[in-house]
Parts: sequence; structure tokens; C-alpha cells
Amino acid sequence: MKTTADFNMVNAYIPGRANVGPATEAMIERRNALLGPAYRLMYEHPLHIVRGDGVWLMDPEGRRYLDVYNNVTSLGHCHPAVTEAICRQVQTLATNTRYLHDTILELAERLIASVPGTDLAHLMLTCTGSEANDLAYRIAKVRTGGTGVIVTDTAYHGITDAVSQFSPSLGVTVALGPHVRLVPAPRLYHAEGADLGERFARDVEAAIADLQRHGIKPAALIVDSLFTSDGILPEPAGFLKGAVEAIKRAGGLFIADEVQPGFGRTGEHMWGFQRHGVVPDIVTLGKPMGNGQPIAGLLATADALAEFGKHSRYFNTFAGNTVSCAAALAVLETIERERLLPHAAHVGQLLRDGIAGLAARHEAIGDVRDAGLFVGVELVSNRATRAPDRGLTSRVVNLMRDKGVLLSACAQGHNVLKIRPPLVLSAEQAGMVIEALDASLAEAQRTPQALA
Amino acid sequence: MKTTADFNMVNAYIPGRANVGPATEAMIERRNALLGPAYRLMYEHPLHIVRGDGVWLMDPEGRRYLDVYNNVTSLGHCHPAVTEAICRQVQTLATNTRYLHDTILELAERLIASVPGTDLAHLMLTCTGSEANDLAYRIAKVRTGGTGVIVTDTAYHGITDAVSQFSPSLGVTVALGPHVRLVPAPRLYHAEGADLGERFARDVEAAIADLQRHGIKPAALIVDSLFTSDGILPEPAGFLKGAVEAIKRAGGLFIADEVQPGFGRTGEHMWGFQRHGVVPDIVTLGKPMGNGQPIAGLLATADALAEFGKHSRYFNTFAGNTVSCAAALAVLETIERERLLPHAAHVGQLLRDGIAGLAARHEAIGDVRDAGLFVGVELVSNRATRAPDRGLTSRVVNLMRDKGVLLSACAQGHNVLKIRPPLVLSAEQAGMVIEALDASLAEAQRTPQALA
Repeated sequence: MKTTADFNMVNAYIPGRANVGPATEAMIERRNALLGPAYRLMYEHPLHIVRGDGVWLMDPEGRRYLDVYNNVTSLGHCHPAVTEAICRQVQTLATNTRYLHDTILELAERLIASVPGTDLAHLMLTCTGSEANDLAYRIAKVRTGGTGVIVTDTAYHGITDAVSQFSPSLGVTVALGPHVRLVPAPRLYHAEGADLGERFARDVEAAIADLQRHGIKPAALIVDSLFTSDGILPEPAGFLKGAVEAIKRAGGLFIADEVQPGFGRTGEHMWGFQRHGVVPDIVTLGKPMGNGQPIAGLLATADALAEFGKHSRYFNTFAGNTVSCAAALAVLETIERERLLPHAAHVGQLLRDGIAGLAARHEAIGDVRDAGLFVGVELVSNRATRAPDRGLTSRVVNLMRDKGVLLSACAQGHNVLKIRPPLVLSAEQAGMVIEALDASLAEAQRTPQALA
Repeated sequence: MKTTADFNMVNAYIPGRANVGPATEAMIERRNALLGPAYRLMYEHPLHIVRGDGVWLMDPEGRRYLDVYNNVTSLGHCHPAVTEAICRQVQTLATNTRYLHDTILELAERLIASVPGTDLAHLMLTCTGSEANDLAYRIAKVRTGGTGVIVTDTAYHGITDAVSQFSPSLGVTVALGPHVRLVPAPRLYHAEGADLGERFARDVEAAIADLQRHGIKPAALIVDSLFTSDGILPEPAGFLKGAVEAIKRAGGLFIADEVQPGFGRTGEHMWGFQRHGVVPDIVTLGKPMGNGQPIAGLLATADALAEFGKHSRYFNTFAGNTVSCAAALAVLETIERERLLPHAAHVGQLLRDGIAGLAARHEAIGDVRDAGLFVGVELVSNRATRAPDRGLTSRVVNLMRDKGVLLSACAQGHNVLKIRPPLVLSAEQAGMVIEALDASLAEAQRTPQALA
């Protein structure tokens, strides 16, 4: 059962590595038998979750876990505004976009209003972020006549056949397409004083040139605007500008993948790309869009969509259904009503500062970075060389879980703690995260072999 | 606005063709501005729907329409068993497959139990039928080392980048992949006495040989087991056998797309492929699976999945979420509790017989065929030549809508009425369909130019 694919996934459960107890083991065996070999669980001791409430997840024994990982339930688990919208709509009408209905139009109006200063004019809906990126790629191909795609070296954009070919973080056993080029992610912590924006633009230009040298016309540069799976790379804001200009000069589209950074996560803006002062041709949306209800989509300019609309009609049975749209509308209203952007900015800063404060005691903390409520903590074995400490990161993630705090890791070196809580996390709860991290780092360094 | 893509879609609303009134026109304009040029509405006069209840859909003026088209809401719109399951679960927990939970395992057990006599052993979940077919194709490529796909000439399997390349019914402006071969759909009504199974097998063998001649290894034969978009082609049961043997001999997989025929639609079995006595390597599931809640997936043999599981981990954030699984479980329980299979068989036969009875009065009815509650009515301009009457079909569909009965059309000639009601349709309601069809055929033939 231990395959390359297991080890490439950060924080995957690996069978036989730890004693999980007979009940969990039986459930895992039953699950493997039913769901087959491609599914993965998280943590050395996988969690059985039966209830969610705000920032908390509960197991069958009633033990509760502070969830600082799931941005899907961005308003908190089971937020009443969303559950009420879903229950009301599911009892009234659940149908599709081949009939007229109002909710999808209100949703589109609100989302288009959230991207001032761009030409983004149309909303198209899908059910998943993967489908959104897949559709964005189809649109880019029709618009540009090209097929070439440029992404960062540990990017994740989804799991359809097309999108998995430009999601290198799925690991070396999932082949990249011959039309795909990787560029190094813009990692300030490892930039050694270089101008990150200039370097990233140069790398994208080189990728464009290489595509063209192979007779492949560039269709798009696609980036997660917070570079989540590359290790959460927010700074310096503005570094995307040169790269975006480069792809546009080459006739390609710039696609901002906001599946993880979007819906207010950065605290300052609704969308991550807005921090960089760039203007995308397409913006893809997903995870927190329905606070758990399957809904995703994209915003596109009229120019990007015109040709596609002439060639292809678009219908996705469940996408834009009345229930999912009602959930998404409730999410947007709640973000505004509960003033979650300033809240995320405030609590995000407390969290970041608190963790940065731990660096004095914990030599392993190489870098702490954030944008709003998205915090990355890079753990190193040596501050001078900035060498990744993957083993320590894994131990810390699992010790945090044992202490009742759920997070995970990311980055090429698997050594960046990924802290991406529901936006409603309180200052007090941020303090609990800092405290648990302090204790976990101390414990992980005392007993380095315990879980490695 | 009149593009090839519009005209290729059966029963699409075409702007300017009919006077829809100022309110509807304003709403359509608002929608076009917000959703862009790729979306399509149905009917000459698009419907604004605000409520659903059982087999009925309601517009804002309270006019009700008998819905004999939407198999998604297969138990009827807003079935209480499903709305209660969704409301209960959405207030308890909406989370993903990276944690253990029970509902997905119960769902898998039930679905695997529904395919006795096969080696189908694992369930994988997606959010849409498109994603299910996309994943099936990824799995087939890894298992076989091939890329070649064989589908029927008017097949529809979905809209991801990969799947749209083997969905010829999207029209000539959406390019087929170079690795895709089309075979004629097995149309008994046009077979002129030939052995349909033999002919279909021979066509698939020729497609395999042509792929191989081009250096392309076959990965899969994919068919909708009721050939929905090809015109609803159920008979003679068994005609799939030779073709399935041929693809297996060539090292490819047989994928049964049950997105439309599945979940009891045929009345006799849960799945359409079971009528043919064939054994698929992969079965894809969708539309009625959650009675409107976005959930889809596939069943696969251990053999088909083994290699994929070694190479690729699979995670789809919303797929297999606790809420969608609860909805799907409620659907399976309801199909059993309400004995919907025998009901579908019974009412389907009444509907088919009633419509066949109209053929004595309406020369245009060339053929009536069904499997359970899936009825196709082929309209011809000449019974001897069996020439398709596309214009009449479109008029009948729109007259039926005006009389309060919702159906649509399909097939290469756009001349087969597609009647696919919720499984709970009553005998009395079947009578209403027959009566409305009788009147619509009479009226369409009296005023041939009215809507064409």
C-alpha cells in the first residue's frame, strides 16, 4: 500500500505507520475495500468526524477539534444563514439553468460587483474548482488558438484530465502535459535579495519562449494568487505584474485561481489577485463559495468569452442550481453582514504576530507569512541554509492534531504549516493555536523519532 | 446571436424567433448580460420557474407545468425524504473525504450491492456526471496505456475538456479529439432488418482497427446504455454484447454511462446495462443520484482501479461530502420504499402504449420505444422513408409546453421526443401527457408554419 503517490501527499495517513486502534483500523479497512486505492485520509491517526459547529469539529466520543484548516466552511461549520438558505430553497425548488430563475442573476450581479476596475463581466457556474479551471482552460484555448499552459512548480489546480496535467503537486506519477511548462514559485524567503517580480516575469517569459520554440502557442498563465500549494507566498504584493504583462504580450490569458485565496481570505480584498494590482482575463472561484454546498465557477471578460460562446453552448446540470445559488448568496451576504474581511485581517495579524513571536524560542521557525487569515509557517533544519525540515513539519502537524488543533502542510519541501481557518476564528481561538503550536514544536524537538 | 451552436442544440430558445413578452425578454437580456454568450434556455418561450412539487413545476403566476423531462428530480421535485436528509445533515456536518465518516460507506455498500454478477467493487464520487466520465477516462488511460475512445455518433458524455472531445452531440464547432472514433448508433427503426448487435460489434471493431492503424491504443468504449442523445435506443436488449467483447479483446475497457438511464429508470433494473447482459469495467453515475443535490460518481472493478490508485491519489473537495451522501442514501432508500422500479415499469408501459395508440391518427409518429419511464417518439415526414421531421418535432415540443407539459427532443435528426419524467408519475398523469400529445400533434399539423 505504500506507493509514491502516498508519500508525495503532504500529511497523508500511511497504513501501518502508527497504531490507530482497532475501531479506526476496522473503519479504514472497510473504507479501503469500498472506495478503493485512490482515496487518502489525513493525519497519522485519521479522524472520524460526526459533527461541526463554528470553528469546531467533533468526533463520535465528543472530543472537539479546533479547525484551522478548512476554508470551505469559511463562515464556520453549519452557519445558520447558509443552512437556512439551503433548507428553504431545497423545499421550494432545486432545478437548473435551462429555466429562468432570479437567484443566479442576483449572485452574478454581486460577484461581478466584487471585481471593480476589471473588465470581468460574466459569471459561469460549475460544481467544483476543478471544473472551473477546466472550463477556464477550454475558454482560453478557444480565445487564443493556443494550448500552452504555464503554472508554478508545485501548483495545484484540480483533478480533471486536462487540469491534472497542469497540477504538478499531484506528484511525478501524474504526467504533465507536453504543452505545460513549470516556473519556479516566487519564494521571497529563498530569493536572496533578488527582485521577485522581475525574476518571476523573466521565468514566465522563458517558459513562453520555450513553448513557442516547440511550436506551442501559449493559452494561459494560471496562478493561485496566494500560491497555496507552493507554500503560501503573499509578499511582496505586486510581484505578479511583470508576469501578467508577459503572458498578455504573448497573446495568452491571465487566469487567477481564487479557489483557495478568494472570498475575503486575505482580509483586505475579496480576491487575492487584487493585492497585486493585476487584471485577470478569467478568475476561477470555488471552495468557500457555498460554505460546503458544491458550487464553483468563473468570472470572465466579454472578450475572453465571445469566441467560446459562438462555438460552444454550456450546460452543467447541477451548476447554478437554485439551491447552490441560494447558499452562495447567503455566503456573500454573511461575509458583508458579519464584516468578515476586517475580522480576518485583525485575527490574521494576531495569529501571524503570535507565531512570529515563537521564533525566539523555536529555531525551527524559519519564516512566518500571511495574508489575512491564511498563515504559512516555514520550518527549517538550519536557519542559515533555510533547509526544509519535512520530518519536523509532519510531527508538528500530527502533534497539533493530538492536542485538538487541525491544520496541515504544503510547499515543495512539505515543510510549510498551512493555517487556513474559517474566517470567524476569534482572537481567543487564535491564541489557542499559538499555544498549541508552541507546545507541539517543543515536544516534536524533544522526541524527534517518535512519529517520523 | 444566431450561431451554429444555437441551432445544433435541440429545443434551444432562439432570440427574436417568437414574441416572449416584455417581462421575459427583460429577464433574458439581464441574464445574457450577466451569464454571457454560452448559456442556453429551453423552449421558444423560456420558462421562469419558481417552485417545484412532485411532478409539477410552477411559474411566478402560479401556472403549473407537468414535468416529464427532468430525471434529475427522479423522486419528484422537493421529495420530503431527500429535503429532510439534506436539512438534517447540513445542520450537523458538511465535510469531506479526508476524514472518516459513515454515510459514504453505507452509500458505497448499497451501490455496490446494486450490481450483482459484476466485478464492480469500488465507488468513487464526483460532483457531476461530466466529472465522473472524465475520471473514468483517466482511469481507463492508466489501466490500458491507451488513449483511444469510441462513442456513438450523437453521444453526449459531458463538458470537461477531455469529455467534450468525445461528446459529438455538442455540435461540429466543438472539435472531437484525434483519438476519438464515432460509430453509428444502433437504431433498430432504421436497421432494415439487419442484426443490430452484429452490426454494432462490426462498427466497433472497425473503429478499433482504425485507431490501431493510426498508432492509437484503444482505452475505452463508452456508451450511454439507453443511447439517450442518439434518440433513446433500448431494443433489442442484448445488442451490446458483441461490441463489449470487441473492446475487451482489444485491451480496452467498457464504460457504461448510466447518468441518464440509471437509478431505476428502465423499470426492470437499477442500471441500463443490466438489460443487455453485459459486464462493464466502469459504470458512471449522475443526474438522479441526489434528486437534485450535486452528486455523481463511478463504480469500478478492482482491476480497473489498481494502477490508477498507485499513480494518482484522488480528492475532490465537495465530492462525497456528508450532505450529498445523505441525499444519495435517501434517494436509494426511497426508490426501494416506494417501489419505484415496478411503478416505472407499469406507468412507462401505459405511456408507451397510449402514445403508440396515437399512431393510428397521426401519420407523423414513426416509432414509439421505451424502457420503463424513458419513452422516445420518433417523428417522421414520411413513414416509408422514415425521414426525420425536425420542424414538426420542435413545434410539438413547444405546443406541449404551452399546454403545460414539459418535454424535449433528441437524436441526430432532432426528431425524437424525449419523455423522461420523474419516476413517481401517476397513471392519470401519463394520460394527461398522451392527451396533450394528441392535441399538439393535431395542432402542429394544422398550422405547420406557426412556430417553425
